[in-house]
Amino acid sequence: MNTPAYDALTATYTRLHRLGHLQSIAGWDQAANMPSKGNEARSSAMAEMAALLHRLRTDPALGDQIQRATQEPLNDEQRANLREIGRDWRRATALPEDLVQRQEMTTARCEHAWRSQRPANDWAGFLVNFRPVLALARERAALLAERSGLSRYDALMDHFEPGMTSARVDAVFGEVRQWLPGLIRAVRERQALNPALDPVGPFPLDRQRWLCEQVMRILGFDFEAGRLDVSTHPFCGGVPEDVRMTTRFSLDGFLGSLMGTVHETGHGRYEQNLPREWLGQPMAEARSMALHESQSLSFEMQIGGHPGFAALMSPLLVQAFGPQPAFEPDNLHRLITRVKPGLIRVDADEVTYPAHIILRYEIERPLIEGEIEAEDIPALWDTKMMELLGLDTRGNFQDGPLQDVHWPAGLLGYFPCYSLGAMYAAQWFSTIRRQVPDLDGRIAAGDLAPALDWLKANIWTQASRWTTDELAQRASGEVLNPAHFRAHLERRYLGV
Amino acid sequence: MNTPAYDALTATYTRLHRLGHLQSIAGWDQAANMPSKGNEARSSAMAEMAALLHRLRTDPALGDQIQRATQEPLNDEQRANLREIGRDWRRATALPEDLVQRQEMTTARCEHAWRSQRPANDWAGFLVNFRPVLALARERAALLAERSGLSRYDALMDHFEPGMTSARVDAVFGEVRQWLPGLIRAVRERQALNPALDPVGPFPLDRQRWLCEQVMRILGFDFEAGRLDVSTHPFCGGVPEDVRMTTRFSLDGFLGSLMGTVHETGHGRYEQNLPREWLGQPMAEARSMALHESQSLSFEMQIGGHPGFAALMSPLLVQAFGPQPAFEPDNLHRLITRVKPGLIRVDADEVTYPAHIILRYEIERPLIEGEIEAEDIPALWDTKMMELLGLDTRGNFQDGPLQDVHWPAGLLGYFPCYSLGAMYAAQWFSTIRRQVPDLDGRIAAGDLAPALDWLKANIWTQASRWTTDELAQRASGEVLNPAHFRAHLERRYLGV
Repeated sequence: MNTPAYDALTATYTRLHRLGHLQSIAGWDQAANMPSKGNEARSSAMAEMAALLHRLRTDPALGDQIQRATQEPLNDEQRANLREIGRDWRRATALPEDLVQRQEMTTARCEHAWRSQRPANDWAGFLVNFRPVLALARERAALLAERSGLSRYDALMDHFEPGMTSARVDAVFGEVRQWLPGLIRAVRERQALNPALDPVGPFPLDRQRWLCEQVMRILGFDFEAGRLDVSTHPFCGGVPEDVRMTTRFSLDGFLGSLMGTVHETGHGRYEQNLPREWLGQPMAEARSMALHESQSLSFEMQIGGHPGFAALMSPLLVQAFGPQPAFEPDNLHRLITRVKPGLIRVDADEVTYPAHIILRYEIERPLIEGEIEAEDIPALWDTKMMELLGLDTRGNFQDGPLQDVHWPAGLLGYFPCYSLGAMYAAQWFSTIRRQVPDLDGRIAAGDLAPALDWLKANIWTQASRWTTDELAQRASGEVLNPAHFRAHLERRYLGV
Repeated sequence: MNTPAYDALTATYTRLHRLGHLQSIAGWDQAANMPSKGNEARSSAMAEMAALLHRLRTDPALGDQIQRATQEPLNDEQRANLREIGRDWRRATALPEDLVQRQEMTTARCEHAWRSQRPANDWAGFLVNFRPVLALARERAALLAERSGLSRYDALMDHFEPGMTSARVDAVFGEVRQWLPGLIRAVRERQALNPALDPVGPFPLDRQRWLCEQVMRILGFDFEAGRLDVSTHPFCGGVPEDVRMTTRFSLDGFLGSLMGTVHETGHGRYEQNLPREWLGQPMAEARSMALHESQSLSFEMQIGGHPGFAALMSPLLVQAFGPQPAFEPDNLHRLITRVKPGLIRVDADEVTYPAHIILRYEIERPLIEGEIEAEDIPALWDTKMMELLGLDTRGNFQDGPLQDVHWPAGLLGYFPCYSLGAMYAAQWFSTIRRQVPDLDGRIAAGDLAPALDWLKANIWTQASRWTTDELAQRASGEVLNPAHFRAHLERRYLGV
């Protein structure tokens, strides 16, 4: 078929993909390897690249090519790719290059300083760098809102979760707010009757690393196409052909790094299984961040919280650290599913987790809309932590608003994706349970293949072939339905 | 001063420097971290970046700006920078973008395959990938020769060693060929009377890493602006603000990784001490590769081979591996300065080292000039190894022509820089010895500061402020004079 405009677009996106590869690897390196004095130069380099990519993506010729390509004889997949190209182009052209570059510099500086400000509990120092990050995020939000007709916060969220609005999030989170406190209380009372035994450390770091690599293998991570390293804030970066996962270790406990690694492996396998034949094109990218989190949470919560997973882990723990009563499968499962309100989001169990997200969403939305200022964060944080989880956080910034990389990195509008992802994950497993006879028996017997195969076929290899709503519909017969999440929690934690 | 054309040029070179930063880090990562399935995508990304940088460096506007800048009121430093910009521009514009991109792809593939072909002794497999590497190197050489009026080989060498010609190399190496075999014999006879005791392994890798990091600290490497990692072929990469050194460890011996690390630290400190106020401009780059090697060899040979260095290392070895007689300073010095013809260049002592270089030079020069073909390499290698070092290498490709990364990486024209560097290093230390009272006494007492300070003042911070001949003249009162190298060897190894 003769499709010159479409072909020109795919050539541009292949170039963007290749240059973006270097940006991803350098970004991973910045978090996992880079010594401190390298940061100014790295930040300048990353900003230069961001500006360059932005310039390529906003080339006026593209708008014209997109117009002409819609008239060309494209097949369905090409049309889907063109839809994604158009989406990318509309977002990119809303932002001037200069803003993109300033944002790169400013967030890199803020994130780098945050790495030492967090352990120092230095909120005042953080504010100095965070104010310009916020100012630029608002500037960005205003431009994107103007272009899209969305509200400012929605315009930012749309980047991570296309099609999602704060109206929809408000409805979903509003409903969760109604039943969550009661559920947490009920689960806590129930678990108090059958407490879990704590494992006794220390847990040598090299044995923890071995354990993490074993579990990644069990979950199907391809080590010829990726690595596991260490960074302050665990993440999954790199490129689909070379996925760079990170974790962090603590001598006192292995469960945080183990379950964190299970979480990131969900992201990693999604990336490793994006459709190769389309790689480089927007259609081959992960659908959205809620979908991405639905994979990490399918791994961490749906699989990791299953009794069968504890049974799989138990002998590995004995091999890694020697035998102890806490490693018995039943106890291990109780440990993994133990519900306990805590200060740290990434350490939270799946029942209290939505509280952390609702809190952040209720702060960052008005922050972007200009209803509150950066100075207001600590007081709001303290109030909402008391309200949602009954915890006192006054003066404890490092375990409060300084705990996450998202705000220093300028990633405002991202947080809702975690809980939306948990809801999608519950929806996927409710579907798998319908389709696979005796799914729970198979997982209990250590057979993860049916679940992983379903995710690969229905989510990973589908990439951005469909919109999120279409994808959910095709995979599970309905769009996002948070009822599955509540049912999952009640079933697992209250035996309902 | 009003210097619009010059200012436009420096802005372009700052951009090139920033994008090149990402290229350097990704290149280091490719050698030190990348899993095998990442290679195709990484190679495409590196090729895309190489083509992009090439396009920026060959922008027709630059030629014009260079012309106009020569008429602007520049100070001496700016004139030096403009000279280097002009040199870069003339080289870059001789090469079409398409050639640069093909060369990136082809060498990346060859180098990647070489990593497994070398241990498999697979010369035939290597040839398949190396033939296109050679063809492209010749194509490049022909274009550069046409532009510069140099011979093809000289045109390649000029990239690494501006101003150096094969006529000058022939003269220098020709002279070395006359006295080297006799010197090796004489040293071997002398050392046979007082043999060194071999250390007894194994040497745990984590203790070797500790040792390497200690010696890097002693030599002044700044770990806040660099790292030490592991790769198949040790190198020093990264950027001046974040130097990435690599080494390789073997359980059986620590001396190779230790002295390799001393070597790379010389490169690393040169990079870390390039003038910050000019960073990003060609004038702030290391002067040449022979000058670079003169630093690694100042560290490895001039300092590392000094009895004072063995005295410094001795207690560290005891701390790392426990006491043994071989770690006594006298014996350690004898080990470090032991002369023994061997197959591997990077393991060679400083006396036999020039033989390895002369051999490679005598193969790669006619290879580029089209006088021989890739198929001819093994037979020539065998003959010359027998002739120069009396060693039989027939059939042993992995310890023969497959041993170095340079040819698979397409770095033809580089090898002479090693021996030229050794000669410059001897020349620097002959100067330091004249200028610093009792230099040997101070090194023997563990005081490396006078030597390191001299190198910093006279070489590192001078960067590309002067041509190589000017730099040598300013630093030592004369241009390259290989007599210092011979005198150094005769003094150290024959007590002359």
